[in-house]
Amino acid sequence: MEIDVIHFRAGDLPEPDAARAIVVIDVLRATTVIAAALANGAREILAVAQIEDALQLAARSAEPVLLGGEAHNAKIPGFDAGNSPLEYGPERVAGRRIVLRTTNGTRALDAVAGAPLVFCAAFANLGAVARALLARAPGAVTLVCAGQDGTFSLEDFLCAGALVERLEGGPSDPQDGAIAARQAYVASRERLRAVVESGSHARALIGMGLQDDVTFALHTDRYDVVPALEDGRLVAASPA
Amino acid sequence: MEIDVIHFRAGDLPEPDAARAIVVIDVLRATTVIAAALANGAREILAVAQIEDALQLAARSAEPVLLGGEAHNAKIPGFDAGNSPLEYGPERVAGRRIVLRTTNGTRALDAVAGAPLVFCAAFANLGAVARALLARAPGAVTLVCAGQDGTFSLEDFLCAGALVERLEGGPSDPQDGAIAARQAYVASRERLRAVVESGSHARALIGMGLQDDVTFALHTDRYDVVPALEDGRLVAASPA
Repeated sequence: MEIDVIHFRAGDLPEPDAARAIVVIDVLRATTVIAAALANGAREILAVAQIEDALQLAARSAEPVLLGGEAHNAKIPGFDAGNSPLEYGPERVAGRRIVLRTTNGTRALDAVAGAPLVFCAAFANLGAVARALLARAPGAVTLVCAGQDGTFSLEDFLCAGALVERLEGGPSDPQDGAIAARQAYVASRERLRAVVESGSHARALIGMGLQDDVTFALHTDRYDVVPALEDGRLVAASPA
Repeated sequence: MEIDVIHFRAGDLPEPDAARAIVVIDVLRATTVIAAALANGAREILAVAQIEDALQLAARSAEPVLLGGEAHNAKIPGFDAGNSPLEYGPERVAGRRIVLRTTNGTRALDAVAGAPLVFCAAFANLGAVARALLARAPGAVTLVCAGQDGTFSLEDFLCAGALVERLEGGPSDPQDGAIAARQAYVASRERLRAVVESGSHARALIGMGLQDDVTFALHTDRYDVVPALEDGRLVAASPA
């Protein structure tokens, strides 16, 4: 399996390819929220990049949806929930359809929607995604770091590196970006929280009082769930 | 000093800013060649991105120039030298003007030519560049990894990470990309050659019989020289 790690930029993604899986990573906080919600029993998540699209999807839905997400890291007025994984417990999400609007993660998901196999990963479900990839064994996988407003995000790169390392349990051919990410993770894992909290995104969240979200997002293998994009909706993939 | 590490892409560089220094890194092999040539007494190097520009500059020069560089990693027909640092010894370069055409490094140099302070770094002159930056203490420094044909190059990222670590000897404020590069270097330095040789660029060079160039380029602090861009020419900056 050829493995690469890239930084998300619109127009800069690999062409859809039947042999290439895409994994979107937005540790703080979209893919952590997605893993939490699906692990806690949400039926499906419609991830959208625009607030208006989220509102329209919610208005058009035949069933009541849970409308969640953030703009500038804060809950959006009129939405039911923000973008903290702590808001997506089973009592709130079990069996429900969620419409999720976030700044970076859903933009990246939007951009890769044409790919045949798209998963979401975070530290929270690292092992599950690694096992699913090893089981499906696509010829290539591109780990897409969602970043923050178009810039590189440290925590996504480190999570990508952690996933590269897990994938080395199988036959793997890491490309330059994947090797770099894995090395960065290897040097950071013993004090992952301190390293991530030296990054811009964690600092911004902590400055807004969201330390708990950062701490939560760095806990590895909390959930055995593989969010997969199917017909435009994120659902828990059946175990490999 | 705010420190960031970016991957070179035309049109994606910071705006010229009097308070921001730029360091171009192309370990394999342009900035290693530049450091070697200037350390070995070359008077100046005109780095250009196009072969035709190199030929024209050589033809127009009032003095005989040494015409060097590569295309697709190989010496260009009609040129005096290729892109191996081993070809730029004192007996050949002392006192001379060099016109250098390379694929990646000189493109990046071209793109940042409007910046007020531009240095070239490689493992070969890491400490010298670090000392020059610490002495001049710009408000910010962007380390530009030249990459390879627009893609990420492992060895440039690791070299950038090594420079970030050296700069932490002074007051420094590494941004996400700089932290990631430093961590990747920290995990790699004890077996730098093996890690770099797992990357695409080193493998390509070794496949062409250029193992000696790779080995040479990974030797740290070989030269006490700081190549600086002045009036479109690279010269050895006066010691800080």
